[in-house]
Amino acid sequence: MNLPNALTYSHTLLGECVGPGDTVVDATVGNGHDTLFLANQVGPTGHVIGFDVQTAALTATQTQLTLTGLSAQVDLHATGHEHVGDYLDDTTQIAGAIFNLGYLPGGDKTVVTQAATTLTAVKSLLQHLRRGGRIILVVYSGHPGGMDERNAVVDFCQALPQKTYQVLQYGFINQIHHPPFLLAIERR
Amino acid sequence: MNLPNALTYSHTLLGECVGPGDTVVDATVGNGHDTLFLANQVGPTGHVIGFDVQTAALTATQTQLTLTGLSAQVDLHATGHEHVGDYLDDTTQIAGAIFNLGYLPGGDKTVVTQAATTLTAVKSLLQHLRRGGRIILVVYSGHPGGMDERNAVVDFCQALPQKTYQVLQYGFINQIHHPPFLLAIERR
Repeated sequence: MNLPNALTYSHTLLGECVGPGDTVVDATVGNGHDTLFLANQVGPTGHVIGFDVQTAALTATQTQLTLTGLSAQVDLHATGHEHVGDYLDDTTQIAGAIFNLGYLPGGDKTVVTQAATTLTAVKSLLQHLRRGGRIILVVYSGHPGGMDERNAVVDFCQALPQKTYQVLQYGFINQIHHPPFLLAIERR
Repeated sequence: MNLPNALTYSHTLLGECVGPGDTVVDATVGNGHDTLFLANQVGPTGHVIGFDVQTAALTATQTQLTLTGLSAQVDLHATGHEHVGDYLDDTTQIAGAIFNLGYLPGGDKTVVTQAATTLTAVKSLLQHLRRGGRIILVVYSGHPGGMDERNAVVDFCQALPQKTYQVLQYGFINQIHHPPFLLAIERR
């Protein structure tokens, strides 16, 4: 067994806090890898709410969901995750959420997540996060602007009150090409 | 389930790479918590080699090992871990090792691990680490001199060649009182 990378570990952490019937958010649908994982986790009685600004990515993901019989429990929205609050009822509690920051591999590398909209989305999600729920951010920083977003997100997480949240940082530190690392915000 | 802290996660990571018959090193025996865990993992056909400069800690641990029937597979040495190379045959391969840096809780707070001797021990252990084996360091930095050791250990780990080793950093980043974090060096 090798030490899991940030992407693999993100699913381990979500698998521990998300179960049948839960509501969860995929803040960056992209290639749909996380969406399908979450749709399986929550099952037919659950709800996955997904966001992406790239409609081609949403179309491809919707096709995969249909082919795998998972589309009933998923709603995809062609808008930025900073609007997530508009798609959650005031009383809705979420069990988990995931962000893949940076650009979509294989997509348009000039379309990248931004610190301001990422943090707007995280703040909205924190208001709905149930106890024991987790918001996971897989942080890439090697692209132009990536370090700014990385620093803003880490600063925000470090300032979260420890009485209410635990924030874990997980990542490899001896790799040359800025591998992604993981931040996990858990509500106590 | 809550996110595990560094101490708990250290046993998860060792449990994945250490099994019956293995040779392992407890570089800082202290209260014996890790020693007993490792003695259980390697079983009666394995070998735990432990080091501590505080003889009272070794005596207490030896008693616990005897009471729990684990003493046969453990050798404790009242010397610093920088001498670990003297206790390993050239051909001995180790499956794992653990360090708890800083001072021994409940012990003499002026007796602390030091960057130079810690790194001497880590370098010796790397020469014996088998593929898939892991050296775990639980790093405390809140005590006087702790930040110096922390920085030296992190710098050393970041410079380890990524073709041969993966180095994971795991820890909470929003807690005020310098909680310990974990470094895991895995040989590929």
